[in-house]
Amino acid sequence: MLPLYIIKIGGNVIDNQSTLSQFFQNFASLSGHCILIHGGGALASKLSKELGIIPTMVEGRRITDADTLRIVTMVYAGLVNKSLVAGLQAQNCPAIGLCGADASLITAHQRKIEELDYGFVGDIDHVRGDILQQLLHLNLVPVIAPITHNAKGQLLNTNADTIAASIAMALAAMYQVHLLYCFEKPGVLRSVDDESSLISTLSFSEYQNLRYSGVIHTGMLPKLDNAFATLQAGVHSVYICHVSALPDILQSQGTQTGTRLYL
Amino acid sequence: MLPLYIIKIGGNVIDNQSTLSQFFQNFASLSGHCILIHGGGALASKLSKELGIIPTMVEGRRITDADTLRIVTMVYAGLVNKSLVAGLQAQNCPAIGLCGADASLITAHQRKIEELDYGFVGDIDHVRGDILQQLLHLNLVPVIAPITHNAKGQLLNTNADTIAASIAMALAAMYQVHLLYCFEKPGVLRSVDDESSLISTLSFSEYQNLRYSGVIHTGMLPKLDNAFATLQAGVHSVYICHVSALPDILQSQGTQTGTRLYL
Repeated sequence: MLPLYIIKIGGNVIDNQSTLSQFFQNFASLSGHCILIHGGGALASKLSKELGIIPTMVEGRRITDADTLRIVTMVYAGLVNKSLVAGLQAQNCPAIGLCGADASLITAHQRKIEELDYGFVGDIDHVRGDILQQLLHLNLVPVIAPITHNAKGQLLNTNADTIAASIAMALAAMYQVHLLYCFEKPGVLRSVDDESSLISTLSFSEYQNLRYSGVIHTGMLPKLDNAFATLQAGVHSVYICHVSALPDILQSQGTQTGTRLYL
Repeated sequence: MLPLYIIKIGGNVIDNQSTLSQFFQNFASLSGHCILIHGGGALASKLSKELGIIPTMVEGRRITDADTLRIVTMVYAGLVNKSLVAGLQAQNCPAIGLCGADASLITAHQRKIEELDYGFVGDIDHVRGDILQQLLHLNLVPVIAPITHNAKGQLLNTNADTIAASIAMALAAMYQVHLLYCFEKPGVLRSVDDESSLISTLSFSEYQNLRYSGVIHTGMLPKLDNAFATLQAGVHSVYICHVSALPDILQSQGTQTGTRLYL
């Protein structure tokens, strides 16, 4: 099977111009098929505040009322997505910016109200792996914003980590998928403030132990739950790493940069 | 050659929810290949004002400083583009929302400063007809926002009428292209306030006469110049019409709805 690199970047890349320039070069130099999934960084909250709408976050998830949905659609699918595409195109990377509504790539349903009403937040039902495969076959590089739709006309705000995992799983039968979550830390840390405490490999049973002992907690849990689920679904390799580690990881898989997960 | 309908809609469709709902149904019911090009309507100016940036228009063109470019990128390529895509998808139309930077569909250069500095406004250099053809071949319906790029990392604001014309010309050798400009009037009028003064057919020589006699003026001139240029470049038919005329024009080309241009 052909290798496919699915790379998710977060706010630490998008919000920093020098990190972003370096990322464009690194990403564009990858050979083989690639998909980029991005978050929105601090820009959505910044625009919210400028418009007098106070952003409300619960456990890292944005409560998305109608005004906030308009803002994240503008920022994620408009400003961030097209800026990334233009930056990659300048490096001769044939990027094509999409969201989950485009070609109905990602359908979702609005999250049911239980303890909390998240508003227009979508949980994924289906990824059109066939369409992504056709775009990759045209040698295009999909750049995907974390907006989905319910196929009934409603756009929905969906977590970018979850989108990356769902896309990886949808394509695991067609490609040798390598999934890389790039964020602001060098990888999974034993001690969140000590970058030298990097866990370079993490098995599912070790993860369960570290989780129950409280070493890994809060923000990392959904990311790691997502990540291990993709391995169980046939994704070939999963890394959690700093964006600057991208070239090292892709050139020599035995390096100590970042955290490699395994079952 | 296969027919291809290239339809440009402006603010009168986008800004009005009931017109938009009707448009989604009409557009989705078209058979054969279609491309939709949209403007931004009043939303970009509305967001500008909410952010304290006064929109500056000269002869219908928006002066685009860096802040305004961010706004039009968010509104055109984000909010408007993805709302149109979600609305069309709800009608089972396989829409895929793109701007000119995506897959480098439309490259442009920043307009040179002469009497006026338009800022980040782009004049089109090249349209990738081959990529559009590949997307159409996948039975996708491109929905295109009026943002282009210079292939060096800079997004540019580009007139949607001109984009529609350039795409029509780029595809005229591959398809029997029908180009329809939908706007808020029933077509080209002899008297701008009298909708019964519709000119149902307009030849290039008649246009020249009406132009020199001052009957057709201001806002219509760039639209008509663009439109006649496409006929000269091999586009099969060009209409200027109200959006509600779309089904009539496409079902029976002899109808009196809208203005048909010919050479």
